[in-house]
Amino acid sequence: MTPDEFRTHGHDLIDWIADYIGDVDRRPVGSRVQPGEVRSQLPEHPPTDIEPFDAVMADVEGVVVPGLTQWQHPGFFAYFPANNSFSSILGELLSAGLGVQGMSWVTSPACTEVETLMLDWMQELLDLPDRFRSTSATGGGVIQGTASEATLVAILSARWQATDGAVNHDGDTTRLVAYATSQAHSSIEKGLRIAGIGTERTRIVPHDETFAMRPDALAEMIAADRAAGLVPFFVCSTHGTTSSTAFDPTSEIGPICVRERIWLHVDAAMSGIAALAPEFRWVNSGLEYADSYCTNPHKWMGVNFDCDLYWTADRAALLGALSILPEYLRSQAAEAGAVIDYRDWQIPLGRRFRALKLWFAIRCDGVASFREMILDHVALTQELADWVADDERYEIVAPHPLNLLCLALRADDLDTANAATDALIESANATGEALFTRTVLDGRSVLRVSIGARSTERSHVEAAWRLLQRTAPTE
Amino acid sequence: MTPDEFRTHGHDLIDWIADYIGDVDRRPVGSRVQPGEVRSQLPEHPPTDIEPFDAVMADVEGVVVPGLTQWQHPGFFAYFPANNSFSSILGELLSAGLGVQGMSWVTSPACTEVETLMLDWMQELLDLPDRFRSTSATGGGVIQGTASEATLVAILSARWQATDGAVNHDGDTTRLVAYATSQAHSSIEKGLRIAGIGTERTRIVPHDETFAMRPDALAEMIAADRAAGLVPFFVCSTHGTTSSTAFDPTSEIGPICVRERIWLHVDAAMSGIAALAPEFRWVNSGLEYADSYCTNPHKWMGVNFDCDLYWTADRAALLGALSILPEYLRSQAAEAGAVIDYRDWQIPLGRRFRALKLWFAIRCDGVASFREMILDHVALTQELADWVADDERYEIVAPHPLNLLCLALRADDLDTANAATDALIESANATGEALFTRTVLDGRSVLRVSIGARSTERSHVEAAWRLLQRTAPTE
Repeated sequence: MTPDEFRTHGHDLIDWIADYIGDVDRRPVGSRVQPGEVRSQLPEHPPTDIEPFDAVMADVEGVVVPGLTQWQHPGFFAYFPANNSFSSILGELLSAGLGVQGMSWVTSPACTEVETLMLDWMQELLDLPDRFRSTSATGGGVIQGTASEATLVAILSARWQATDGAVNHDGDTTRLVAYATSQAHSSIEKGLRIAGIGTERTRIVPHDETFAMRPDALAEMIAADRAAGLVPFFVCSTHGTTSSTAFDPTSEIGPICVRERIWLHVDAAMSGIAALAPEFRWVNSGLEYADSYCTNPHKWMGVNFDCDLYWTADRAALLGALSILPEYLRSQAAEAGAVIDYRDWQIPLGRRFRALKLWFAIRCDGVASFREMILDHVALTQELADWVADDERYEIVAPHPLNLLCLALRADDLDTANAATDALIESANATGEALFTRTVLDGRSVLRVSIGARSTERSHVEAAWRLLQRTAPTE
Repeated sequence: MTPDEFRTHGHDLIDWIADYIGDVDRRPVGSRVQPGEVRSQLPEHPPTDIEPFDAVMADVEGVVVPGLTQWQHPGFFAYFPANNSFSSILGELLSAGLGVQGMSWVTSPACTEVETLMLDWMQELLDLPDRFRSTSATGGGVIQGTASEATLVAILSARWQATDGAVNHDGDTTRLVAYATSQAHSSIEKGLRIAGIGTERTRIVPHDETFAMRPDALAEMIAADRAAGLVPFFVCSTHGTTSSTAFDPTSEIGPICVRERIWLHVDAAMSGIAALAPEFRWVNSGLEYADSYCTNPHKWMGVNFDCDLYWTADRAALLGALSILPEYLRSQAAEAGAVIDYRDWQIPLGRRFRALKLWFAIRCDGVASFREMILDHVALTQELADWVADDERYEIVAPHPLNLLCLALRADDLDTANAATDALIESANATGEALFTRTVLDGRSVLRVSIGARSTERSHVEAAWRLLQRTAPTE
């Protein structure tokens, strides 16, 4: 592709994206394709000749888009929001255009320094503890690709700390024990498994009726493990669980971890960003006890994926866990301790200039717009809860402090209720008007209504509720 | 940012990128900024009001770009190439615009199916073993962010296989032993450390005078470890090392691994892509023995970062190592075994639609253009080697079968030679005309000339050599 062709096709693609986002609601939210259907429409073997860009875009329109779940659709109530925004799309475009590597400060100083500044800006905007700031004595922040990676980095930091660094040499993890509830995200178990903490040493801490961790149970389990000669080393407290937006009580968990010298990671991937609105600063209660924390602008804030923010109050543990310095990556600036080399703050070596999209979003869209969207979505969720409460076929099965409502159909017995709820989800999704996902809370099938797409307005929530009302069995 | 503003600014940004790439050679290759200089030019606190896009772009021009190492500069001979291309930039833009998640097939079927097809296309274009194809009995491929992640996934697969899956439960890695040379990439040590294989059980296999692994030494070390009751489980064979493009002899290493039932991972992150040119198919010799393999289109092929291709011949081990299925991620298609859920093939959960940029590049730029660039760069490297051989101040210190030349200045003793080479690198880089990186080969300071930027032509290599000639001390 020549530079002139890039200009022409690039302009066209920008317009195509604006059009796509503008009328995504004319498409079904969930794709209707069958397994293999997308691939079957594309050539099995690579082309030998160059094809015109228009031919590629014809396949995008005709084959790819119909094969997508439309995450930017206003009727998208599934999983979690994964918003993009016009400003952050341009930030991503610029990152691709510059094509620089931010693995070390010296490989592109601005890539590191803008990122550090963005983490400090966000610390301020979210009102996080000062000890997470890059300008603090021992803390700092970094952009990770995903909360899964942030979790793994936290576990590795904790593992290093609990073994005084010995794990880097002997790799012995066989006495380490970790704690989380059954409601914690699957990435906790995955991260622990990767780090050599198998299921035998991963304790599922009981939760209360709000699906939040019971600190008394945590303390008991820690004591039992210590008595057995094991080494409790990591607790994950979730602020806003994936299944039901439960909040583990970090203000009570924190003192236990401090007393027991256990690394406390707070996973607020979905809900932490709500603290952009002063009304919801409570979502980060207890964070003064946390050794590490993460939240995702690529969910509710509208900075397109991937953009997870990870802070630690103990960067020495992080560097101890992850730093490796081969000759070909040495630099004078790093050896003088004057700069951050973010490659040592993450699993991969290479890294894109992801701070650009956050910078663009904060400057061009503004914090006020994020706050407004968050307030709107929470208000809509509470309004929906009121409507649901008036329909006796439905039951709300978990607290809903933010933007997620967990519903189930009532029935005389659990199996019947679960079957009805499962059938409801399937039928509602089949319409293509909205998309919901299912979870299970203490054995109960649940329809999750996650209200977080940037394009979702009151009319879409009303339509979704009408859809659920007409789809539910009438008694 | 409104849709109309997005169109306007998007068009401008496309043109800005075309201009930037077109005249990147008027800038110094390496940034001249001092630590903290970029940040000091930006506001310490986030803005409270929206700013115009032009103000942001003014900072990009005035603050960010001068703070970058220009990886797309034709005088960039440092590290490794990290090329972008106009077509792949548009692929990345489209991915950001669509804003879909490819963590599971059902979360956007096309995201998975196009990716699987691209891996099969690339298997064909690189002439890799058929058992890596998604259509094979037990293999398949996936896009990872980086080779570091691919390596970690390979190690985790190997760990699962060697323990019959027990590691997922007991987390016991204390008998596992891994093997690589000192020339293997730092991500091998990092990945092993993460997976609980400390330095005490990471064997540095001796290399020969070409910096390639000695299979006899590998076999001896494995035997010694077995005799000591340990479990050899992972060998990394590098095809094109970072320091010097050394090729470990996989054709000889492979039979040892087969006999000993050890997972063999081939890391061809930099050089594997050369197999796009039939002349260089030898770079993948011995791959029929490999259990896993990776190479990076985001290096020499011009598909912008991040795009690492990872193939395995044993997807059961991969799924055994990484699969976790919470209720909120279940789907009928996955449970029927009809589809791939790529979240189980990688460390993170979320994933972008990265296959688009590879698809765009193959279709719009064409394989012939990649082959031509690779042949040109290799020819230029060999030509440079001839010039260097005629300058008695210089010595070529490693084989240079592809696009990397390792140089050192001669002197009567090693310390003097090393100091001279180090000074040469510093002085040459300070000109801003070209950028080289240093490595150390068996105690010797080395200037690496990596010829791989898409924009690098004969005139740039000539200029770089003139720079080195005039910068080296005259005797």
